Amino acid sequence: MDHTHDPSRRSWVRSANAPTTDFPIQSLPYGIFRRRGESGARVGVAIGDQILDVTGCQQAGLFEGETEAAGRSCLPIGGPCALNPFMALGRPHWTALRRRLSDLLVDEGGSGADRKRVSRLLVPQVDAKMLLPSAIGDYTDFYASVHHATRVGRLFRPDQPLLPNYKWVPIGYHGRASSVVVSPAPVRRPAGQVRGQGSDAPRVVPTARLDYELEVGCFVGPGNERGTTIDIADAESHIFGLCLLNDWSARDIQQWEYQPLGPFLAKSFATTVSPWVVTLDALEPFRAPACPRPEGDPEPLPYLDSAASRERGGVEITLEVALRTAASRERGEPPVWLTRSQFAMMYWTFPQMLTHHASNGCNLRPGDLLASGTVSGPAETEGGCLLELTRGGAKPIGLPDGQTRTFLEDGDEVIIRGFCERPGFARIGFGECRGEVAAA
Amino acid sequence: MDHTHDPSRRSWVRSANAPTTDFPIQSLPYGIFRRRGESGARVGVAIGDQILDVTGCQQAGLFEGETEAAGRSCLPIGGPCALNPFMALGRPHWTALRRRLSDLLVDEGGSGADRKRVSRLLVPQVDAKMLLPSAIGDYTDFYASVHHATRVGRLFRPDQPLLPNYKWVPIGYHGRASSVVVSPAPVRRPAGQVRGQGSDAPRVVPTARLDYELEVGCFVGPGNERGTTIDIADAESHIFGLCLLNDWSARDIQQWEYQPLGPFLAKSFATTVSPWVVTLDALEPFRAPACPRPEGDPEPLPYLDSAASRERGGVEITLEVALRTAASRERGEPPVWLTRSQFAMMYWTFPQMLTHHASNGCNLRPGDLLASGTVSGPAETEGGCLLELTRGGAKPIGLPDGQTRTFLEDGDEVIIRGFCERPGFARIGFGECRGEVAAA
Repeated sequence: MDHTHDPSRRSWVRSANAPTTDFPIQSLPYGIFRRRGESGARVGVAIGDQILDVTGCQQAGLFEGETEAAGRSCLPIGGPCALNPFMALGRPHWTALRRRLSDLLVDEGGSGADRKRVSRLLVPQVDAKMLLPSAIGDYTDFYASVHHATRVGRLFRPDQPLLPNYKWVPIGYHGRASSVVVSPAPVRRPAGQVRGQGSDAPRVVPTARLDYELEVGCFVGPGNERGTTIDIADAESHIFGLCLLNDWSARDIQQWEYQPLGPFLAKSFATTVSPWVVTLDALEPFRAPACPRPEGDPEPLPYLDSAASRERGGVEITLEVALRTAASRERGEPPVWLTRSQFAMMYWTFPQMLTHHASNGCNLRPGDLLASGTVSGPAETEGGCLLELTRGGAKPIGLPDGQTRTFLEDGDEVIIRGFCERPGFARIGFGECRGEVAAA
Repeated sequence: MDHTHDPSRRSWVRSANAPTTDFPIQSLPYGIFRRRGESGARVGVAIGDQILDVTGCQQAGLFEGETEAAGRSCLPIGGPCALNPFMALGRPHWTALRRRLSDLLVDEGGSGADRKRVSRLLVPQVDAKMLLPSAIGDYTDFYASVHHATRVGRLFRPDQPLLPNYKWVPIGYHGRASSVVVSPAPVRRPAGQVRGQGSDAPRVVPTARLDYELEVGCFVGPGNERGTTIDIADAESHIFGLCLLNDWSARDIQQWEYQPLGPFLAKSFATTVSPWVVTLDALEPFRAPACPRPEGDPEPLPYLDSAASRERGGVEITLEVALRTAASRERGEPPVWLTRSQFAMMYWTFPQMLTHHASNGCNLRPGDLLASGTVSGPAETEGGCLLELTRGGAKPIGLPDGQTRTFLEDGDEVIIRGFCERPGFARIGFGECRGEVAAA
């Protein structure tokens, strides 16, 4: 771990030093933003309540030597600005730019002249509209929480909740890239075919079982050529960073359509990502062993196993979901927290998911998005979606104002937050992944 | 139908008038090509054994008035040349450009001066490398042949071959966009987890059950905004044209991984498309009623039903699959034909698939690829994949030289062809969709 992680490091951007900020100088997550009133998109890093305009830093000549290529990759050349070219460069470039940005923003370092130039490149977050971090070529959603898979399996297949392949295969499916949106895009309640119990003909109706799924997203860095694989020992060099993700789901549509080829319209109406991508470099202090497998479970097959993967394949991220109803918003009340769970508890790690994904020669490309699947803990209260928390709608959740919820109602706003904390290190947050349900 | 379909229309490009050509002047399919020794990609249309360089026509000032926007969309602006901008324009522009190109190439029309300019813009197909027609944002694979679904279902789920949703829902799943390649890209045999009957632990081995799937692809024209739907009556205005498609499949990997979320690595190693996209305009003479549903089957739900969809939702395309083994290629023998089937027999039409796809508000984008699913006829000999033809590998196919096949072997080349024929119209072909299996 290098000096960029030093918890005593403080920024001359004062809001970055507040103990409650999600974006201290030790994090520096990347995003794409557009300044209010301007049309061009730019690369930025979040620092306190500000954004440092990285594209602007490059244009101002602040990157040289080992950061030159990284700086150039943040220019909008040959298309709208997105993180794909930077993601494609690989870790040495990511690390170099991180150090340079940290040095530009640190209170002790940087000349007065530099600070003056850099301070002109700060944009208040409230004056920026965030865009998708990358042009997502493909989006893949995994199913890596055994607790989620078991509880959801019990509802869909009471006779066989966890299928025999689960503990061998990091199960995943291709998602819809076009409908990945960035927080806080509204989500319209989808309509679709639904068939009631015992009735013959399905009806086309707005979903009555709209759900969220609490997930972590992973942006791919350098890709692999079609026909080649990615060794588990090398998987991390292909991972740029993580974000929060809500894989909105229509459970009644899903129940009727999902066999034999998997979820389709039940998911493809919207997937929300948080705007800031926290790099693996920033998450270094919060790496954790892969979750130990229960006695009797098989060891991962050799292609999914390595010492590094076992010892530090996980990331300790505390995740939370909150709900704000239309009524509580009108009364100015804060959101109600529904769930808390821990990302380090996943059965499969991102390096395993990525290596598995490429194990048949499938080519991953820079900027591709992988998602973890719903992050649920072992306790019933740690379900990462309403389907689990309400046991398929059978057990409504009570809200403080006396309302109840089985599934989401129009006007409900879902807010996902995540953060990393460990003694001796600065707290790092993921910002928010939020979306409000609009009527069908 | 306009003059561009007149079967007596002949081109001054002589090879286009041969009765055996796939590319008469009545077709004019679009593709992206690179001339041997050049680096830039260009839009072209196939005419006989030549390609007319459409990008070059635009640069030469051959498009004016109602073809101006279409011509401009074929320039490589803001990225590598692809058909997405042209696909986004919509049918009036497609039709206008078709007429203009037909007039430039017709023997009777066009001034001598025009012909001279145009002839300089012809590139022999043998001197061109074909690229993917579009930058594919998302690739969706359907399952629209009830004969395929039933026969494959019988192998995977003997107790319930056709699931209750099949006759209501045009079943589909998200495929992998990154591994869509253009004919004749080689396909490396993928490895993956396979579990034998009765054995506990899966092994990671090269697939022993590599298969092709005979399909038709459909390129999306103008898209829809997220949260909006596409009326069945308007679906065709969103369809640019069709191609041939081979959805390569590893059946042993599929069998082990596909539940509960559908096929993933069993498919994502490669999907091959033919290079030429035949426009719906060109296919106008070959439109056919949607395949009549057997007595007792439900009618399509209202959102998937319209008079136009019933009367002309289908397209009569005769499809064929041939196999050439390494040994027969060495002996210089022609491919062996394995299957013939008819695209008009599909249970669901592309307008129905497209409308269903957007029915939840999922946004389609210009250049997106939909595939029909395996096109199989009712007879056992009309199976569009080896899984069907060999009944899951139980009944090997005999080849003329005494070899047999259950699934594909290294060095096997799969060749898909398709064509439209109807009395009173010129025959239109789709060219070839081919690929050779490389060893793991």
